[in-house]
Formats: sequence, C-alpha cells, structure tokens
Amino acid sequence: MFAAEEIHPMAESTPLTLYYAPRTRSFTALWLLEELGVPYALESFDLNGGRNQEPDYLALNPMGKVPLVVHGERPVSELGAIAIYLADRFPGAGLAPGLDDDARPAWLRWLFFASAIMEPAYGERFFGWDVPARSVAWGSFDRMLRVVTEGVTPGPFLLGEAFSAADVHVGATLRFGLLFGILPKEGPLADYVARCTARPAFQRAEAIEARESERFPLPAES
Amino acid sequence: MFAAEEIHPMAESTPLTLYYAPRTRSFTALWLLEELGVPYALESFDLNGGRNQEPDYLALNPMGKVPLVVHGERPVSELGAIAIYLADRFPGAGLAPGLDDDARPAWLRWLFFASAIMEPAYGERFFGWDVPARSVAWGSFDRMLRVVTEGVTPGPFLLGEAFSAADVHVGATLRFGLLFGILPKEGPLADYVARCTARPAFQRAEAIEARESERFPLPAES
Repeated sequence: MFAAEEIHPMAESTPLTLYYAPRTRSFTALWLLEELGVPYALESFDLNGGRNQEPDYLALNPMGKVPLVVHGERPVSELGAIAIYLADRFPGAGLAPGLDDDARPAWLRWLFFASAIMEPAYGERFFGWDVPARSVAWGSFDRMLRVVTEGVTPGPFLLGEAFSAADVHVGATLRFGLLFGILPKEGPLADYVARCTARPAFQRAEAIEARESERFPLPAES
Repeated sequence: MFAAEEIHPMAESTPLTLYYAPRTRSFTALWLLEELGVPYALESFDLNGGRNQEPDYLALNPMGKVPLVVHGERPVSELGAIAIYLADRFPGAGLAPGLDDDARPAWLRWLFFASAIMEPAYGERFFGWDVPARSVAWGSFDRMLRVVTEGVTPGPFLLGEAFSAADVHVGATLRFGLLFGILPKEGPLADYVARCTARPAFQRAEAIEARESERFPLPAES
C-alpha cells in the first residue's frame, strides 16, 4: 500500500457511475472500482442494443465505447485514463504511487504499456497483420511478450510488493490474452494472472460480470 | 496556464536526460522538454547504430525504444507516461491540470487517445490492416478522425485556452499523420497543428531535430 498523501473528503460523496457492458474491456474498470472500495452506480447494458451510440452517451464519450466513468460532472474514458484518474482521486485505496514516489514512472509506464503496446500487439497476433516492427510504436508481439514477462518476475506485482492500478490494467489484459489463447498457458504470466485473480475485488467483479452476462445473454446463433 | 499547486525545489537540480534519435517519435519528448523550460541533457544517436539495443540501454527501457527519459535514478519510457510524469513533476510550466482540476480527466484521456487510439489507427490506415472495429480498442480510423477533429474544435487547444502536455502528444501525432499523408491537409486538424507548431518551444525542438538529422544522415540508397 502506498501512503495516502492527500485526503479528498468530497470524493466519496460525489456520485460515481460506471457505464459497462458484459464481455467487454469494461470488466477492467469494474475490477478497478471493486479494488477502490468506494460506492458506485453500475449502468449495465447490452453492447448490441446501441445504448453506447445514443447522443447523450456520445456527449460523454464520443468514441461510443465502454467503459465510461462519470464522477460528478466529469466524464472519464479510455481505460488507462480511468485508472490513473480514479487511483489518484481516491488515494485511500493505495492503488497509485504519489506524484513524488519513486515508483510513479514505472506505474505510469505500465498503464501505457497495457493500452498502447499490449492491446495493438494482441491485434497483430490475433488478426495476423503484417506489421513492420520499426514502424509501429509497440515494436512487436514477441518483444511485448518478453518485456511483460520480465516485468511480472519476480513479482508478486509490477511494482514489487505493492498491488496497484497498473496490476488491474496489465493483469486484466493478460487474462484476456490467456482467454484468447495467444499467451502461454503456463509460466510467469499465468502465475501472475493467478495472483491477480485471487484478489477478493477481482472475484467480486467476476461475480457481477457473470450476473450481467446472464442478464444480457449472447444472441442465439441463427 | 494551470496554477502551480506544488513546488518541487529539488526537481530542477536533479539531472534530466533525454535519449533521442532524429526522425522518430522521440521528437515529441524533445518538444515536451522544450515546453517545460528546464535544463536537460540530450543523448542523441542514430537508431541504426544499435545503441538502443545495448544492455545498459535495455536495463533502462526493455522495449529498446526512444524516447527514454532518465530523471535522477528514475527511467521513464512510453511517450504518454513521460508526458504525465514530467508535466506533474515540473508543475511550474503549467502543462498539467492538478489532481483535483476539472480538466484532469480530459487531459488524461487525450494522452491515452494519442498513444492507444491514434497510433494503432494510423497503422490500420497506413499498412491497410483488416481490422474488425468491434474487436480492437481503437474502434476505427474513421471514428478516431471524427473524434479528434471535434476535440480540437473550437480550440485553440484540447482543454480550451490552456495549452497542455496533451497538446504536445496529440499535436505531434497529428503532425506525423499530416506528414504521412493520412490526414486531411486542410481544415480543423491542420489549423490546430499550425497553432501548435507556431509555439517557440516547438520551433526550438524543430531546430534541434534538423541539427541532429544532419549529424546522423539517412544511409545512402544502395
């Protein structure tokens, strides 16, 4: 746990809403909110229903994607931005190193690594794009894999003993990679994901995801 | 300009080094440092020389990429992470809204937008990948283009009157897109890039880039 350097007495009384759809990357934000341990409203919907393309939604997130978090009057989108904003804004949860903490640069780097390196590198592998490694910011799938494997070793977490919002984002992204079958099923990455998914907050999020997946089932194959 | 909420008297006496190669994305970090207006050492090299794959370099940035910033003993990599870290750490430059500022969520979102949405969407367009819009985090090139065009209108900058580190990252990425010929040459995006490149700090960075490009010329075509 990092020290809570600042107290935001208003933060917990400000309404916090997560716009979420089951079977999407919004699971990561759900897990993050459960780790924060603060009250929030869950606006859950079926991504096939078009809720996220309605004008009021697009006014809050013009990309028309989930997750979207609204804190008071403030919309926050893009997973990494949500993670940094909430972890900094609710420092009592100990998910963010403070601005002057030695761990801050690595924390920020891992949050961008998940969004800007791992996500597109997954696309390269999954969809078989022809990608010139020197031309794209993420280098290559294989380099990404080597770097993140070193990053979770020896652990237990990316910053060492302290679990942080970076572990939520990188851990969730690795878990998706395991589910997609593009990461090795055994070894340091799988062990790290097992450490992350053992957390009570992850398990609460998984139970909510299961409930909402049942509420909005996949359309039957025609 | 945002208020300088915190003063870090040690920050300016801590050695700050930018590892940089001309004709790469490290130009963005060079521009950022010029905007910060703090002293830094420039470690410039030819990306074809392999400097960035040597063990001492990989110990600081396992991805083997530029830019890399080292602040005292702290390595910082990934452009967005560098932008957030430096803008928060040197608040006197007014490039970061404070943690409690209403503009903080939008600022963070634009920094991730440049790294995680624009960069891979450029690849989609430039290399002609077949990308299922529902499956990738960046949606599509066309949606990205629409959202960033709305984002720079009416301006002058992403957060309104206040120029910030988000404008450095998004502005530099848009400028690359114009140079690559994948963005419209006229209209709101080009106007915004013109506003960004009119800044004295940009012009200082461009002069350094020109000098270093001459120092490390492209290999002659064989």
